[in-house]
Amino acid sequence: MGHRRKPPSAEVPKATATRISLYLRYLQGREAVGAPTTSSQQLGEALGVTAAQVRKDLGYFGQFGFPGVGYKISHLIPEMKKILGTDRTWQVALVGIGNLGSALVEYRGFERQGFHFTAFFDNNPQLIGSRLNDYTIQDIEAIVEVVPRENIELGVIAVPAGAAQGVADRLVDAGILGIFNFAPVVLSVPVGVGYVSIDLAVQLEQLSFFVTHQHQETVE
Amino acid sequence: MGHRRKPPSAEVPKATATRISLYLRYLQGREAVGAPTTSSQQLGEALGVTAAQVRKDLGYFGQFGFPGVGYKISHLIPEMKKILGTDRTWQVALVGIGNLGSALVEYRGFERQGFHFTAFFDNNPQLIGSRLNDYTIQDIEAIVEVVPRENIELGVIAVPAGAAQGVADRLVDAGILGIFNFAPVVLSVPVGVGYVSIDLAVQLEQLSFFVTHQHQETVE
Repeated sequence: MGHRRKPPSAEVPKATATRISLYLRYLQGREAVGAPTTSSQQLGEALGVTAAQVRKDLGYFGQFGFPGVGYKISHLIPEMKKILGTDRTWQVALVGIGNLGSALVEYRGFERQGFHFTAFFDNNPQLIGSRLNDYTIQDIEAIVEVVPRENIELGVIAVPAGAAQGVADRLVDAGILGIFNFAPVVLSVPVGVGYVSIDLAVQLEQLSFFVTHQHQETVE
Repeated sequence: MGHRRKPPSAEVPKATATRISLYLRYLQGREAVGAPTTSSQQLGEALGVTAAQVRKDLGYFGQFGFPGVGYKISHLIPEMKKILGTDRTWQVALVGIGNLGSALVEYRGFERQGFHFTAFFDNNPQLIGSRLNDYTIQDIEAIVEVVPRENIELGVIAVPAGAAQGVADRLVDAGILGIFNFAPVVLSVPVGVGYVSIDLAVQLEQLSFFVTHQHQETVE
């Protein structure tokens, strides 16, 4: 019978974890238009994978289907959130309040998924002490003290490349559980600390790669 | 014998294309410290893949090694750039000059890899007509006219989710070759138009997924 969640098998592929996020987005879209149920087939079509792949992805975490019904959307959404760890809120520190940092603060997608910026740090004396949302921007030096005191679990790094490793080290010393890095540099963090990095230029290169080879295929 | 480039086999895996970007980053770092050569072994270690995977990745595009020498960094860097389409410059339009858009303009990683913002669009009357770098911010309505006239090939979308598909449609109508989407929504673009999308909240969810399950593993 449906709807049993289990601890994930040790080795969940990264692609599966990403698809869980995308299944959740699709389910939220379906819920918004009042759909009561969905199927592996539909979920697969939405993401461009097979129904078998959908069942395999979900199978890492339990049995969520109901025989003859498929997936109940109102049940599957909270289950996907539990898997992703977004059935709760996260206290997030943002380090680097430049243009990118400011953009991240205003980016509504984070708040909507339960990520709350509750501490801000910068090394610019002109910014330190000023208010952002309901918080005071603090000196980067204060990270080690503030992060454990305020129970901050995740850190977002939006500082220039040259400053990023130093910031990561401070966050790690402060006991941070995970780091989301926007600086265009590979950071070294200890095993056991979560690490996700986005290099925007790499992504743009992927676009030029596609366009270049698409073009070649068309022309030659 | 080394150093023969060929048109890529039709089916280059996405992961390979991403790794070509990361090989290039590694090579540029090695070049900066004056290293003359590298090996599949070293490239693999830098990215956490096997030497065999490195050879397979590069093998899609040609033969780049020299027997007894390995890869000459000064040769391999331009070859990787040719593969990625960054041996040239790209004219890029940015649509949406809010916080995120402004952050992207200042993000130096784009310029460094040859992506130049040469047109800016917004629908905010207070922004239209003002200057950004050496360009005037123009009305979104002008996309269809400006993009072909200015030979703009790529478009970056940094508008709210609700406006993104309309912007994508205009860019496509204008003959854009590729779209880089930051709006947290899946856009529909015709086959043949490049499409790369970053949903920042999905990435942050991947971090909470990791931290959640890491935590479970440690505790249970």
